[in-house]
Order: sequence, then structure tokens, then C-alpha cells
Amino acid sequence: MNNSPQEIYQFLKADGDLLVVTHFFPDGDGIGSLTAFSGMLDQLEVKHTLAIDDLIPEKYNFLPGFERIRNLRVQPLDELFGRVAILDAGSIPRIGQAQTCIEPGAGILNIDHHLTGQYYGDLNLIDTGASATAEILYKLCGEFGLEIDQQIAYGLYVGILTDTGRFRFTNTTARSMSICGELLGKGVNPGWVTENIYYNLPFELVQALARSLLTIELHHGGLVCLIRLDHGHRTDDTEGFVEYASSIKGVALAAFLCEIDKSLFKVSLRSRSPVDVSAVARQFGGGGHLKAAGFRFQGGRAELIDRLLKEFGRQIEAHDLQPGVKFIDVAGDMGEPREEWMLEWSDRR
Amino acid sequence: MNNSPQEIYQFLKADGDLLVVTHFFPDGDGIGSLTAFSGMLDQLEVKHTLAIDDLIPEKYNFLPGFERIRNLRVQPLDELFGRVAILDAGSIPRIGQAQTCIEPGAGILNIDHHLTGQYYGDLNLIDTGASATAEILYKLCGEFGLEIDQQIAYGLYVGILTDTGRFRFTNTTARSMSICGELLGKGVNPGWVTENIYYNLPFELVQALARSLLTIELHHGGLVCLIRLDHGHRTDDTEGFVEYASSIKGVALAAFLCEIDKSLFKVSLRSRSPVDVSAVARQFGGGGHLKAAGFRFQGGRAELIDRLLKEFGRQIEAHDLQPGVKFIDVAGDMGEPREEWMLEWSDRR
Repeated sequence: MNNSPQEIYQFLKADGDLLVVTHFFPDGDGIGSLTAFSGMLDQLEVKHTLAIDDLIPEKYNFLPGFERIRNLRVQPLDELFGRVAILDAGSIPRIGQAQTCIEPGAGILNIDHHLTGQYYGDLNLIDTGASATAEILYKLCGEFGLEIDQQIAYGLYVGILTDTGRFRFTNTTARSMSICGELLGKGVNPGWVTENIYYNLPFELVQALARSLLTIELHHGGLVCLIRLDHGHRTDDTEGFVEYASSIKGVALAAFLCEIDKSLFKVSLRSRSPVDVSAVARQFGGGGHLKAAGFRFQGGRAELIDRLLKEFGRQIEAHDLQPGVKFIDVAGDMGEPREEWMLEWSDRR
Repeated sequence: MNNSPQEIYQFLKADGDLLVVTHFFPDGDGIGSLTAFSGMLDQLEVKHTLAIDDLIPEKYNFLPGFERIRNLRVQPLDELFGRVAILDAGSIPRIGQAQTCIEPGAGILNIDHHLTGQYYGDLNLIDTGASATAEILYKLCGEFGLEIDQQIAYGLYVGILTDTGRFRFTNTTARSMSICGELLGKGVNPGWVTENIYYNLPFELVQALARSLLTIELHHGGLVCLIRLDHGHRTDDTEGFVEYASSIKGVALAAFLCEIDKSLFKVSLRSRSPVDVSAVARQFGGGGHLKAAGFRFQGGRAELIDRLLKEFGRQIEAHDLQPGVKFIDVAGDMGEPREEWMLEWSDRR
């Protein structure tokens, strides 16, 4: 069960340094929640350390407070903390090596919005109705009577913006958007945020995108779209490429075949139809969500494509999908998880 | 001067059919304002006809009321109207051939938000502080005591969403975003809207994008990025391609060279720096805005690139731009117009 704002307040105001962490492979909600929470703790005069066991994507470096986040892979922490706040992580393993900085018997505060989030904290504040962990922190600011300063406002805005996929996914609610309106009123510059996060691409990424888009193929009467990226053209952060395949008019099922090593493919699947792509991924030993799933495949490209198209064909038949129908399944989000989020298979890792 | 809501109400409630039009080359605000206004007129029981002198982009066909908009190029109107409402058009010529449907001496209501908007109506309601014409209509709904039904809500949301560049441009205000929050509360599905407008691409467009991105080049130490599209790979709606060039990290000036005919180029320029690209465009007989401009060029590609790079070089020197500096000028919008919006040169036409 969730703890009250009063209990959380008392926890935060107790003695001792507080470690504040989020999950590895951090996203905008993890990072924005960290910087916003840091601003809240400053106002509460709580001494704290911000840490992530991973590289922190440079595109978020415009966030006030960003420079205070410690990448534990570069700067490990020697000390053990008796108090920890974990933000936006559905389970403890998701904070990775940050676990080694937690004293046995330490008090843990868990603030999260994931549907599959576990109540692993000594104190918990889980709201699956919130669009982002940042939205929970926004509410907490009100309950603690804190002023939403620039650092808090930017962190919260980035958390909601990125977790809603730029106001696209089904978690984009009237409430989350109204909160963003208020945050703009607190001085957030939405253009500056959007430019930094979405319009600041490495040159190599655009070159790789060109190579990848050249491979685009339609199958099954236009219901299936495949794109690939060969090993020779690989670069970081190609996660979004599958979107180009799934965004084509009439496409119900899309796949991005990224050759991460000679004859080793990381495959991302997307559905814009009632087909559950996690079921497709499971046929290859992977998994994921209803509308976003993935797997790894060792073998030749021709064999992979052949098997994948057959599997897609079976699903198209089972769901009686017809070419030419307007396929825009509501919202481009992942849909409900079909099983516990399997990091090792996920194409989001 | 602006007229009062009461005066506008009286105008609308007078006798006779009302013609409601927006500018040719219609965008989301023009089209969304038309369908929303139509919903408002239905509630006011005003008989009306919606018309645009142009093709109406199919991607907006999910809008309730879309099917009521008449494309005058396909279905000309015989009748003359004694009352006209013109939405989102800064001057009368922008409605094109719809002008021929206006009776001499007809009453004209002009509702607009453009900075360069003229008070050409018998009644005018111009609010340059509004993010979109849709935002003005939202306010009018309140003043008229209308219920924001589905048709109105979708039209207004699309108007604000598209005119703010998906909450990116400097017209994204606390107010416009809060209104969008309210519209979600009225039943707008933001995912559905976003998928239809931004994630529903023709296959040919993605193929052309691949071809175009392959040509990407950096110059002047990475400050300038050029992309091209050869005549053989041309398709409709390549307007957004220049964004890929301007979105590359470190790029201050970007150009998209679209070969629209043998040795005829339509060139789009973007600035993410203090450089005024309309001044660059003027060197080639074009024009536009501070941060978005364009021109046409008759001649060889090598000559065009050579002249353009020299002109960019002069601007870089004049503004002392240094490579390696983080160039993200606030917001990706066009900036203030440098001169009267010149349609024939604009790359937005």
C-alpha cells in the first residue's frame, strides 16, 4: 500500500545522506525525476546524492541540476547509504550496481508509476494512473507546499513530455497536459526542451537512418513493413528506426532488423493492429508488450526474414487483417505488458 | 480594431447562408478551425458552407466534420454569398478563388492570429497572442456559452497542435497547453490525432527521404548542412526534409535543395543561429522569415551549391559563428517575418 505524503515527508527529513537513484538505461522520466526531486530536496534542506548506474544521455544536459547526477560506472561511490529514494524503477534490480551502495537494512522510498511496479520499498508511492513518475512528484510538491522553481519545473516537464512520447501515448491525459501547461507558466521553454531532446541528432545517426530507410520493404499486401540496418552501418541510438516502418500508411506490423554483429540480429517489432507482437517475439525466444516487442536472432538474414514473414502471415490470417484498411491503432505506445518486462530481450534495452 | 463577441454573435445570427473559408495550401489550423467553427455554427443554428480553394490534405480526414469541407477546385460554387467568415488568413488574396464566391458588398468576418494579419473584415477578431486561430475560437465558445462537443474539441486541438509544431514553437504558451488539456477532458484522443497527422506516411515519401538523407553533407566545420532531392526521386510533401538537416547537432544553417524540374531547384533554408536566412534567400531573389526562408533557382546544382555555401560563409563570418558551439536557437519556429510573407517564394507554399 502507498504511504501518505506526511510519512514520506518524515522519511525525507530524517538524518543522514539520502541516495537518489533511477533505473539504468535512463530515460527522460528517470533523469527529469531525479533533477526535479533534487530541487525538491534542496528546498527541504535534505543532503543528497544523485546517481545512475549507466551513461546518462547527453541530450538531457540542458536540465538544471543535470551536472549533479553521478554516473556510477565512471565515478563509483565508496560510501554506503542508510536512506535511499528510488524513482521510476519497477523493481530493485533495475537500479543495477547502485544496489551495492545501499546499507543492509537501509530505508527505501519507492516512487513509481509503472503498471508492473513492485512495492519493494519501506515506503511506497505508486500511482499507475500517473503519466510519469514526474507527475507523482508534481503532486508531492503541492502536498509538501514547495515552490516549483526552474529546476523542478524543467525536470517534471521533461519527465511527462518524454514518457508520453511527446503527448502521443495513451498516458497523455487531460491532467498530465494541464500540468505541463502550468509548468510552462513556471518558466519552462518548451521549444528549448524539444530542440534538445528531439532535434539534436548525431550526424552518424542520420547517415545510418538513410542506409536503413533504403532497405524498406512492404510485404503481405502492404500490411507488413521491414527495415534493416547492416552491421557495417551501425551506430548508437537506432531505437527509433522501427517507427519509420510502423508509421507507413496501411502498415499493421513492422520490424526493424538491426545486425548488431556478424549474423546476430536484434529485432524490434511493432503492431498497429490487434496483433500481439509479444506472441510473435516469443516464437523466437523473445518477448515484450502487446504493441512493442523484440528478440535476438543468431543466423542468416534470409532465414530470419523468411521465418518472420511466415509468423506475421499466420497472425494476419488469425486476425483476418485486410490490406487497404486504415490501420492506426489508437496511440503508438507499447500497450499492456504481456509478461514481466524482460530486459534482456527488450529492444528498449 | 477588434469587434466584441456580441457584435460577432449578431453577425453570425443574421439571415442568409454563411460561407466559411480558410487559406489555400491549408494547414492544420486552417482545417481544424473550419471544422470547429462549423460545430459552433451548428449549435448556433446558422446555415453555412465550408470551402477551401485547394486540395485538403487527406491526413486530416479523421476530423469530425471534415467531409463537409468543399474543395472549390473540384466542386466550384455557383452561388454568391452575402456573408463570409474567413479564418486563419492574414489577407484576402490568401483565400484564392473563394473570393469569386463573395457578393460585392458582402459582410466579412475575419478571425486570425497572424502577426502580419490585416484588418480587412467588416468585423475583425485578430489576436496575435493566440497560438492559433483555433485558440481564438476556443475563447469564443466560452463567450457564446457553447458546449465544446467532439467536433469542436477535435478541430481546436488539431489547430493548436499543428500550429505550435507539436508544442515546439515559441507560440506554445501555458494557456495554449492548458486549453489542450481541457480539450482532452472533452474526449479528444491525443494518440489518435498524432498518429493520423504525424505517423501515417506514404511509402513513397519514406523512400524519397532515404534518397535525400543519403546526400547529406556538412560544410564550414559542421555549421552548415545540405541535403538534396534529385528530380528522379521527387514525391509530394517533402517540406519536412529540411528539418533533418537543421536537426543535426552543431548545425547552425541548413538547406534542402529540391530539384523540382530539370535544373530548377526549390531551396528551403533554416537557421538555428542568429543568422537571418531571409537575407540569404533575398540574394537569390527569394525571401521569408528570420529562421525559415526559401527561393527558386534555375541553373546547375554545382553552381547553386557553390553560391549558397559562399553566402552562408559570409553570414558565418559576419556573425562570428564558431563550430563546436551548441547551436540550438530557442524553438524551431520561423521567427518574425522579415517582410510581407511572399507566397510565391515561400518554401511553405
